[in-house]
Amino acid sequence: MTVEQAEGRPARRRGRRPGGTDTKTALLDAARQVFSEQGYDGATVRAIATRAGVDAAMVNHWFGSKEGLFVQAVLQLPFDPKDLLDRLTAGPTDTLGERLVRTFLTTWDATGGGHFTALVRSVSSHEQAAHLLNDFFVKQVFTRIAGAVAPDTPQFRGSLVGSQIVGIGMARYVVKFEPIASADIETIVRAAAPNVQRYLTGDLS
Amino acid sequence: MTVEQAEGRPARRRGRRPGGTDTKTALLDAARQVFSEQGYDGATVRAIATRAGVDAAMVNHWFGSKEGLFVQAVLQLPFDPKDLLDRLTAGPTDTLGERLVRTFLTTWDATGGGHFTALVRSVSSHEQAAHLLNDFFVKQVFTRIAGAVAPDTPQFRGSLVGSQIVGIGMARYVVKFEPIASADIETIVRAAAPNVQRYLTGDLS
Repeated sequence: MTVEQAEGRPARRRGRRPGGTDTKTALLDAARQVFSEQGYDGATVRAIATRAGVDAAMVNHWFGSKEGLFVQAVLQLPFDPKDLLDRLTAGPTDTLGERLVRTFLTTWDATGGGHFTALVRSVSSHEQAAHLLNDFFVKQVFTRIAGAVAPDTPQFRGSLVGSQIVGIGMARYVVKFEPIASADIETIVRAAAPNVQRYLTGDLS
Repeated sequence: MTVEQAEGRPARRRGRRPGGTDTKTALLDAARQVFSEQGYDGATVRAIATRAGVDAAMVNHWFGSKEGLFVQAVLQLPFDPKDLLDRLTAGPTDTLGERLVRTFLTTWDATGGGHFTALVRSVSSHEQAAHLLNDFFVKQVFTRIAGAVAPDTPQFRGSLVGSQIVGIGMARYVVKFEPIASADIETIVRAAAPNVQRYLTGDLS
């Protein structure tokens, strides 16, 4: 036990500079632990910072928010979900499905698909990773998007949108169904966007 | 080298009874190797039987066909794709999407979803498994289904159908997006079947 722990203060490893890259690494490690123990909703910025032995302000400094920390620590997504949501919900409702498919493909194509495959491997191998992805994506992304356009059943609509988007990712990056795997983005947008749009605003009964 | 190999005859392990369960195991092992080396199309029943050191007739005896052997050896699917195709293509074209979603959910629900998750783990961890699944499913299942109703662009339609079906599996069994994860089958059929039907017979341009 360190002196800090004995006194109830957050532990601080020798030589760490507050605000330095070792602080960032410590926050990522702590975040993985705390999100895994508490789930997305239960984990607090304070608890993660305490576990890392740094000030809670460091979370904002390095990651902008709890969401940003989660995305980098656990999902290792190649985008910021806040930016994504802003981009998607700007513009007319009747073309939201189109923007959603295009943004998804543009974003993951930029990583060559490897990050998507890694994410799928992670969620299919670890129950906890699946739970976290679910918790985060359904509540923070898909349901918010669906809620913005169809407040009646946002979670159902959101999970249907999620199923099609994840399925396109599986087809393009993981299983590599042709021609989806190598088609240009706009070909897939034209084919799939009306289906996503129906999940968002259409009659599902 | 065994006497049989030296003489160019198929090797036969001591004590194996032709037609017995060790023949079945030997065929499964040989099939995994040969499919992995040659792909689905390149692998022949004869090559697999030779590798297993048994007569090619044993493939029909135990697995019905090359397809059946592939499904059990490599994909470990909980259904026979020939039965599936027969069941799906029987009945009116305009409700094929509905039958497809219902059959998919009924089949995989029967295994509690664990087999689907294992399949996803396998294809996201091994490039070769993804390649085999792709080769088999697009050519043998989805494209045949789409080809039966829409001979113009069966592979594009088939891969789109595949994307939605795999996506529903991801949502229900792997990531467990609610309410898809616990909804009754008919609720999902009502919501998703029109989208699958559009991929099969609708205007995609």
